[in-house]
Amino acid sequence: MERLKKQIEFLIEIDKIKHVFRKTRLFDGSRYENDAEHAWHLALMAMVLSEHANKEIDVAKVIKMVLIHDIVEIDAGDVMVYDQQNRQLVTAKESAAAERIFGLLPVDQKEEFISLWAEFEARETPEAKFAAAIDRLQPILQNHLNDYHAWRAYGVSFAMLHASNRHVREGSEAIWNIVQQIFADARDKGALIQEPNAE
Amino acid sequence: MERLKKQIEFLIEIDKIKHVFRKTRLFDGSRYENDAEHAWHLALMAMVLSEHANKEIDVAKVIKMVLIHDIVEIDAGDVMVYDQQNRQLVTAKESAAAERIFGLLPVDQKEEFISLWAEFEARETPEAKFAAAIDRLQPILQNHLNDYHAWRAYGVSFAMLHASNRHVREGSEAIWNIVQQIFADARDKGALIQEPNAE
Repeated sequence: MERLKKQIEFLIEIDKIKHVFRKTRLFDGSRYENDAEHAWHLALMAMVLSEHANKEIDVAKVIKMVLIHDIVEIDAGDVMVYDQQNRQLVTAKESAAAERIFGLLPVDQKEEFISLWAEFEARETPEAKFAAAIDRLQPILQNHLNDYHAWRAYGVSFAMLHASNRHVREGSEAIWNIVQQIFADARDKGALIQEPNAE
Repeated sequence: MERLKKQIEFLIEIDKIKHVFRKTRLFDGSRYENDAEHAWHLALMAMVLSEHANKEIDVAKVIKMVLIHDIVEIDAGDVMVYDQQNRQLVTAKESAAAERIFGLLPVDQKEEFISLWAEFEARETPEAKFAAAIDRLQPILQNHLNDYHAWRAYGVSFAMLHASNRHVREGSEAIWNIVQQIFADARDKGALIQEPNAE
């Protein structure tokens, strides 16, 4: 029963992810979204959109990946994807967080979860590339349905959108098409800041 | 691209599950939990606790089941498990909700999701039995960590707890053991109402 006790401790600890709020709002704009809700939504996206992956993928693996991908933010917090400076500082924090939180599990499960999380972060396998694509699609859709409030608030340009999201294309050409249409719409609606080299 | 359009419409519609609040609070007691957070937590429980299932199970199927099991509550609302009267009234509403919401998807996916949801509801397969066990463990743990506030508020007795949760045993003897310990603790702490035939 020592295993079960550790597993329950982990399951209690990760409840804290419901208190980690993101920079994007729910589709109706009423409030900010938390990491548990975000992960649930990505898992549903994996279930529904897997046919649009560029390569054949193990959908169950993608689902597991997105379910756990933000657990490290319990310790490291959520950093906006367009905030490149803080993004780099946070990487070391996230590794320590993975060690601490997944370390609550029995050692075989700890290794399984850390390996899954590291695969997601490395974005090299077809599963990780597809997971990354839906991880970008979801907040982009949220911004689209909320008159681009987060992009307006953070001063995001067309060039920044492209630079930070171009990897979507490696996971799914179809999703990349949608995302590009939304970027063009945001520009047409004047929601993006101007840059000399924006194009 | 007609398929992708339908899929995106479904993924936007189900965002509403984040507004469906349950009767139980987060582990720290700070606020009530919503259905998206609950489903995410169950999926993690499936990943972590599957070794405790009585029978060999397809874990990926359990994960998918718990991820979608409460989507019908977007239309039908959340009904406390101990509220048997409303529980029965709600069944017809839930079937109509499944038809409407999963009906937003392309027809093959609609059928897949309805079949998965119906399997969960019927509680006959090893996967559905295990999914039902963790679906009970999670709020029971929440109540345990919140001084049994929901059981106190709704006037739940020891007999009601046993009657409404005894199916946990069909999914997992190990989880049933934990759950029974929590029931006994709740009784010892005076959190349950007395019944003449309570035992």
